[in-house]
Amino acid sequence: MSPKGPRPAPGALATLPVAVDAMGGDKAPGEIVAGARRAAEENGIPIVLVGPSDLVGETGGLDLVTCTEVIAMHEDPAQGVRRKKDSSLVRSAELVRDAKASAMVSAGNTGATMASALLRMGRLPGVIRPCIATPLPRLGHAPAVLVDAGANAECSAAMLVQFAQMGAAFAKERYDIADPSVALLSIGEEPTKGNPLVKQTHALLAAGDTGVRFLGNLEGRDLLPSAADVVVTDGFTGNVTLKALEGSLRFLLETLFAVFSTDEETTAAAEVLLPHLLPIAAEFDPENTGGAMLLGVDGVCVISHGSSSSVAIYNAIKVAHDLATKGLVEHLARAVAPA
Amino acid sequence: MSPKGPRPAPGALATLPVAVDAMGGDKAPGEIVAGARRAAEENGIPIVLVGPSDLVGETGGLDLVTCTEVIAMHEDPAQGVRRKKDSSLVRSAELVRDAKASAMVSAGNTGATMASALLRMGRLPGVIRPCIATPLPRLGHAPAVLVDAGANAECSAAMLVQFAQMGAAFAKERYDIADPSVALLSIGEEPTKGNPLVKQTHALLAAGDTGVRFLGNLEGRDLLPSAADVVVTDGFTGNVTLKALEGSLRFLLETLFAVFSTDEETTAAAEVLLPHLLPIAAEFDPENTGGAMLLGVDGVCVISHGSSSSVAIYNAIKVAHDLATKGLVEHLARAVAPA
Repeated sequence: MSPKGPRPAPGALATLPVAVDAMGGDKAPGEIVAGARRAAEENGIPIVLVGPSDLVGETGGLDLVTCTEVIAMHEDPAQGVRRKKDSSLVRSAELVRDAKASAMVSAGNTGATMASALLRMGRLPGVIRPCIATPLPRLGHAPAVLVDAGANAECSAAMLVQFAQMGAAFAKERYDIADPSVALLSIGEEPTKGNPLVKQTHALLAAGDTGVRFLGNLEGRDLLPSAADVVVTDGFTGNVTLKALEGSLRFLLETLFAVFSTDEETTAAAEVLLPHLLPIAAEFDPENTGGAMLLGVDGVCVISHGSSSSVAIYNAIKVAHDLATKGLVEHLARAVAPA
Repeated sequence: MSPKGPRPAPGALATLPVAVDAMGGDKAPGEIVAGARRAAEENGIPIVLVGPSDLVGETGGLDLVTCTEVIAMHEDPAQGVRRKKDSSLVRSAELVRDAKASAMVSAGNTGATMASALLRMGRLPGVIRPCIATPLPRLGHAPAVLVDAGANAECSAAMLVQFAQMGAAFAKERYDIADPSVALLSIGEEPTKGNPLVKQTHALLAAGDTGVRFLGNLEGRDLLPSAADVVVTDGFTGNVTLKALEGSLRFLLETLFAVFSTDEETTAAAEVLLPHLLPIAAEFDPENTGGAMLLGVDGVCVISHGSSSSVAIYNAIKVAHDLATKGLVEHLARAVAPA
């Protein structure tokens, strides 16, 4: 493993390519390469694809860093990263580590993406554990940020405080929210409500020396739309809640569309309503959100969902390039080590 | 405190009245009394209202057990129950304990309802902690049951196993599901996925001697509609998830209705669709579900939501009477002590 050099300055990062795991996701490599080409052509973002050249195929003129292995979607993450040192995921993380890429984007195996980023880029100084930040749509407003959306099934209060700090720094850079409000997901607004982890975390955040603007506890009913800019929770609760929301949204949408196609009359009515409904549905569509972000590693790492089409990859690359250029990693490092 | 006598036989319970806390909920006593009167008049269910006679007012011929105190909606539950021994909640629980009522129903302070039931009725033999069972709608099918929906913020694996056993017994009696399937809420289907509590619980349930038909882990995305008849989780995760689902459903419904009222054309389209949408909305409406049920105390206790109208109370009373008559408590007692 190469030793990690000093982090490139944000200005330098803007000229570095975004490393795109061409083999990640259910629709790889076709949709991945298409999304990367669009980001290069329409936005002039420098790109380097990573993958075995025979599998990736035509890159449309994009640079390719070749490798020989691919970690499959449902492969054991730790084993995959340990055994497949020449995989597209591990090589993508190494490009960031070696200052040959500004950021990495993958729609592949989430656990293996986290493990690759953590093992190759390393943690930011002082960070106990990285976490996943996921957008929570708020119609007509900037999304809120949920941390941790699933990186850590078991958390300590000190970890949750860092998630709050990193989540706020991320919300500021990602959504231009000047002084993001932070709330703790719990089962009641009172500081005494919750499990031991939540009560301890509440006490630490309320003490006021963490650098975040802490609103207090937030209940599940205030999650969509979120009453706070950043919602902090452990990765178990965060993952269960996020997936429950995603699943119910999908179910309701399917139910609504089934009603629309009942008969000719309902189909005609649906045609009147669809122009109003589609922009709303678009705000909830993970294709448009730019993906989730791994916070706390020494590099920018965007985790796109497994079913990403070229649109999702295009958006994820834009977000990755933008945040690398803005020096997200520096901001995160400062957030967890307030003066 | 009177000593607890032997539990009346289910046959005897059918002739006992349901004790209805006339002062519980945001719309008490008006809507509560109205719902109780309807249950008595339309369904012939014997009812006894509980509350201060000057506050309850006209009972429409229903019996009233008078008391002098009321525990407020946001009063500290433990303190309320300790200090207000002559409150409508405590007296309702005592009527069940003393075999003067078959069941109790309250839309009041949830924590105080649990505390009253637990302290006055007592736990069933062997039950570590009671839990709250809440219906999860499955359109066109019997609802699934979520346990624990919020009684216990902190749980052990042994508690979760009992929640599974009681939840299955409840699903059988409440929804006539012959052999309910049980799943454990987690962040992945594999037994190795989850926090330590979930992994321990998975091992106990998979061992196969608990008397429940265990399917394995279930992810948040499979919660609405639920892939299992009973979903087991700790009360923290259960409460956060349930409220997140309730909040997002309300938000989406409001969003949909806002679109409907955009202009004349959308209003006309909405009129075509509403006859199809309203039956679906009704299945999600907590007014129609019959409320949540406290499982594991030595008596039937239905917890109706705080904003209950007469319809919700009417449905809750029907459920309480039905389950008391079916001997729910006996079934729960047997479920936690399999031969």
